[in-house]
Amino acid sequence: MYYIGIDLGGTNTAGGIVNEKGELICKKSVPTDAKDTENLVKNIGGVINSLCEENGFSQNDIKAVGIGVPGTVDSKTGTVVYANNIKMDHFPIVEKLKAYTDIPVYISNDANVAALGEAVAGGAKGYDSVVVVTLGTGVGGGIILDNKIWEGYMCAGAEIGHMVIEVDGEDCTCGRKGCWESYSSATALIRDTKRAITKNPDSLMCKLSKEEGKVSGKTAFLAAKIGDKAAQEVVDRYIKYLAEGIANVINLLAPKCVLIGGGISYEGDNLLIPLKEAVRPLQYGGDLVDHAEIKLCTLGNDAGIIGAAMLGR
Amino acid sequence: MYYIGIDLGGTNTAGGIVNEKGELICKKSVPTDAKDTENLVKNIGGVINSLCEENGFSQNDIKAVGIGVPGTVDSKTGTVVYANNIKMDHFPIVEKLKAYTDIPVYISNDANVAALGEAVAGGAKGYDSVVVVTLGTGVGGGIILDNKIWEGYMCAGAEIGHMVIEVDGEDCTCGRKGCWESYSSATALIRDTKRAITKNPDSLMCKLSKEEGKVSGKTAFLAAKIGDKAAQEVVDRYIKYLAEGIANVINLLAPKCVLIGGGISYEGDNLLIPLKEAVRPLQYGGDLVDHAEIKLCTLGNDAGIIGAAMLGR
Repeated sequence: MYYIGIDLGGTNTAGGIVNEKGELICKKSVPTDAKDTENLVKNIGGVINSLCEENGFSQNDIKAVGIGVPGTVDSKTGTVVYANNIKMDHFPIVEKLKAYTDIPVYISNDANVAALGEAVAGGAKGYDSVVVVTLGTGVGGGIILDNKIWEGYMCAGAEIGHMVIEVDGEDCTCGRKGCWESYSSATALIRDTKRAITKNPDSLMCKLSKEEGKVSGKTAFLAAKIGDKAAQEVVDRYIKYLAEGIANVINLLAPKCVLIGGGISYEGDNLLIPLKEAVRPLQYGGDLVDHAEIKLCTLGNDAGIIGAAMLGR
Repeated sequence: MYYIGIDLGGTNTAGGIVNEKGELICKKSVPTDAKDTENLVKNIGGVINSLCEENGFSQNDIKAVGIGVPGTVDSKTGTVVYANNIKMDHFPIVEKLKAYTDIPVYISNDANVAALGEAVAGGAKGYDSVVVVTLGTGVGGGIILDNKIWEGYMCAGAEIGHMVIEVDGEDCTCGRKGCWESYSSATALIRDTKRAITKNPDSLMCKLSKEEGKVSGKTAFLAAKIGDKAAQEVVDRYIKYLAEGIANVINLLAPKCVLIGGGISYEGDNLLIPLKEAVRPLQYGGDLVDHAEIKLCTLGNDAGIIGAAMLGR
């Protein structure tokens, strides 16, 4: 049996056909009409139909369609409660799609769906409980327990970036102070790199950022690798706070695997090796207990399509 | 159908017969033989048999026996991995009990079991996802998702007190610094009350503690109620940190209910009203989202028996 996954973004609507194992067979992308929701739905219907027609599938071959939505959803009623980027407010997307397909349709939040994709077929394949931590503009992610997305009451769960790890600490975009996101997002790393550059105008970090024309999430990691001491301090502090948050998640939920994704995860072993080292002593029970493995996401942009497809499995 | 729950403590082994609704029908308690595990098991068997005989139940009336164990358990294999108080190390308690009863036996950690009791028949009756936070010597608790205990990998989950809310903050007994427990346990409240007394030797707190002969978790709450400003500061700070931790749990898991138990919870509305007020602005999504209800535990010491009984439901 096969499944269709739709990764509904503010810019593009990407879809794919996925098999029972979570392997992506084929994919297709069209622009999202973010201004006209009726047309947006019609285009999703179009993606579903063309994926089948162009790849020799009949709609009977497809058990379910899943959609990852960039916003708050009520998965039980198939309603997008609120999605700013695509202008949806209590929009019954599942009902609307019935005009275009007879295949059952499921929805969930896009971050949750991507986490499910990584758990089923990506970096955490084979683990039944996984927390995915995405280090990008913010710190997002998803919680997979017993192979299912944990959505929480009103589908409001897994706002893992908005766990305070320093009371009265750095300002967070959410209004709290000291959220994990305000230390471990790429945005926070860039802020801290800029601060360190101001304090250390002769550092390699400063030189590299001038050459690149900007400070990025890579600046401190790159300068530290070459031996810049001030940059190493930025990286060490970044990893320290990241480790505190990951240890919190492990102590609270004891997942079998914590997966790291998002832009900063492309640092690979430069991030992962010191991170594992830093998390170990912070885990409750220390060496007496087997703790979660910490690994990297592997599916990149396909996680959303694959995870969405797996909603109906 | 009926169930037997056993709350296995370091001092007493308390058992009870519980009906399908989680109502306690009758109970019995015997001393725990913490030095002789074989005898301890025999005594559990004795409690099971006398509960039935003395109350007119046949073993056929009992669907399952559940045991809450004060330690780390492997619920799948029925083994107590480690329990310091009752000297168990990889002890196959479920297997051993087969010598005394034919009723199926289930085990889980005692804090998890008490949380299940509160979720099924106590303060969170009717809520399918509940996080119980116990404010005692430490900060403990349990996580109930879809009406079941979330035990986590190696049954190591729900160490909710060991979530850092202040990086490099107060020393915690676990070895980390700044754990929620090191701000929100009764132990932490007593420490902070003592510090405030040292700074404010003329305060009412100081007078009350001298009269009582000690500083307790009640001292600051009582003095604050009478109007002691220094005590009010202690209480305000205690509630602030408690609120930060509860908001973290809500943002991460979005349970339908957060239940507060343990010694400090006996402050009742003096705790609950300002706590709810403090949590509200810290919840992600603010007033746009319906958030968890915050309530108090209601079963007291019976939570362990009732929750244990519900393991087999």
